[in-house]
Amino acid sequence: MRGVLEIPSSLEPVQSVLMDALALVETRFEGQLKGELEPVQNLLSHVERYRGKMLRPVLCMLSSMACAPARAGEWSWESTDRHVVMAAVTEMVHMATLVHDDVLDEADHRRGGLTVNHLHGNEPAVMLGDYLIAAAFELCAQLGEAETAGRVGRMSMAMCAGELLQLHHRGDFAMTEATYFEIVERKTGALIGLAASLGASASGAREAVVEAMDRMGRDLGIAFQIQDDLLDLEGELGTVGKSVGKDVEKSKLTLPLIHHLQHAQDRAASIALLEQAATGHAGARAALASRAGESGSVDYARQTAAEYVQRARTNIAALPESPPRAMLDLLAQAVIDRAK
Amino acid sequence: MRGVLEIPSSLEPVQSVLMDALALVETRFEGQLKGELEPVQNLLSHVERYRGKMLRPVLCMLSSMACAPARAGEWSWESTDRHVVMAAVTEMVHMATLVHDDVLDEADHRRGGLTVNHLHGNEPAVMLGDYLIAAAFELCAQLGEAETAGRVGRMSMAMCAGELLQLHHRGDFAMTEATYFEIVERKTGALIGLAASLGASASGAREAVVEAMDRMGRDLGIAFQIQDDLLDLEGELGTVGKSVGKDVEKSKLTLPLIHHLQHAQDRAASIALLEQAATGHAGARAALASRAGESGSVDYARQTAAEYVQRARTNIAALPESPPRAMLDLLAQAVIDRAK
Repeated sequence: MRGVLEIPSSLEPVQSVLMDALALVETRFEGQLKGELEPVQNLLSHVERYRGKMLRPVLCMLSSMACAPARAGEWSWESTDRHVVMAAVTEMVHMATLVHDDVLDEADHRRGGLTVNHLHGNEPAVMLGDYLIAAAFELCAQLGEAETAGRVGRMSMAMCAGELLQLHHRGDFAMTEATYFEIVERKTGALIGLAASLGASASGAREAVVEAMDRMGRDLGIAFQIQDDLLDLEGELGTVGKSVGKDVEKSKLTLPLIHHLQHAQDRAASIALLEQAATGHAGARAALASRAGESGSVDYARQTAAEYVQRARTNIAALPESPPRAMLDLLAQAVIDRAK
Repeated sequence: MRGVLEIPSSLEPVQSVLMDALALVETRFEGQLKGELEPVQNLLSHVERYRGKMLRPVLCMLSSMACAPARAGEWSWESTDRHVVMAAVTEMVHMATLVHDDVLDEADHRRGGLTVNHLHGNEPAVMLGDYLIAAAFELCAQLGEAETAGRVGRMSMAMCAGELLQLHHRGDFAMTEATYFEIVERKTGALIGLAASLGASASGAREAVVEAMDRMGRDLGIAFQIQDDLLDLEGELGTVGKSVGKDVEKSKLTLPLIHHLQHAQDRAASIALLEQAATGHAGARAALASRAGESGSVDYARQTAAEYVQRARTNIAALPESPPRAMLDLLAQAVIDRAK
């Protein structure tokens, strides 16, 4: 959060409580990945550097704070071990997906460093991702809540199904927006929704509120993914910190390109560029980005992301007024203000 | 089991109860993988064909039967839903590892058919394996037992760590037998041990018995893996039904080769053959197999496998005498009598 959000002084108590909670999440996360055989430990230490702003733990904690019953007097909140474990589980599942995503994308950069697959090959990267999934489920089992374990399992199935759907539609230039949203809600939205809804559950929120937080997280996740798609189309490695141009290289149609293919003056020329970009031609990607700009498709994607953020904010606004609710709202707005 | 074991008529009641239980496992397994998006469903249907003799469910059920409290009168036993789910979980974790193993080994054949990675590429195979792991954990959560979920999680971590250790030692011609056993106990033994120990737990066995069944399964798993290594070194696709020669192609040292490199008359010549075999040279593999035979290394590996089976049988013999114990013992002996 630091360096991402401008925090008004009224929210400093929330910020401070959040930072304390995230420090506990970090400790728990590291503790779960300690004491392994040395070659395994070395790989784990490498991927621990992938950890960034911990969006999922942040959402889990803020959602829990915002859903906690109001108490008289000054605002205060303290995370429990249950919050910490839930948040660490969401981050660990996320980390596992990053490792496997980089294999799928043949990406060589992540968070400004080199990926496991680039450094050590695909095989250790596949197995390391598996290890992280197993570690996440094992950590989740420590909660002693079979119902939570089931939620994490179902979400993971949905996430993988989303990725498989995306792979199935690779090179499908007729892919619809409906399919796109089905894919991204699963592959990116589901986990962020789970993080927010687990936080709400941990505060004993009613089922309807838990579901609203799930929806809120999903909508933010979709907005986040659209923003990611735009960065992949338009961004540079130097500013983004991870490999870019991977979507077109892997013939994955993203929202700006789906819109573009439906509205381009010369669709055949754009498809030719897509085919050229799939061979790794950087100029073709730049040309596509520029054409997507001209057809209004980049603006359309930006606007769609903003609409999803707005939906998320509506669900946030339905919670009782409180400092963490205000922070959650700031965070929601920040999702689409990431470095362009 | 059918076609693998010669079942004496006295064990027919056990055989019949076991078959009924396995049919329930199959139904539960299929039910857990139903109702997905069509492209996902198609891939799942393909890998369901990988299901073979269901060694892990068989061991889970037989171990449970053999650990059940003795009852007066004729032998009888009935599986519960808990048994069925536990057994299906072990089979599903196994299926996930097969899918990822084939990616790691770049194998194109499995159970006489083509692999997912060969048919659809590595990316769907990685993601499908992830889906199966998630589905296994979700199924496990249906038991409502966080403690069992934790055991499955820890076993999966150990299994992945074993695979990572093996990858780390690829091309390490100085690898020791100790490292080999560390690898195979984790990558193959742990899941088979878990299957047997879950069965024992489900019968309410004492902790010491649960641990003995875990050890029994691990020892059988190690014997099974040594046998697999021998098939990979000496076997032919036509008889084995899956890709062979993958160990040497991937520079994985297995027991016969570790022994051979320590006892070969001309170690340098064998290493040269190993390096040649790593390029996919089938003649080099045959030459290695023949040299490993001459140095007594093939016999040594066979004998070691037999010793592990013997250890497993000692743990089986410590259980109270019963028809399922006799069946378990027959199964243990059959592990190293697989098609050569």
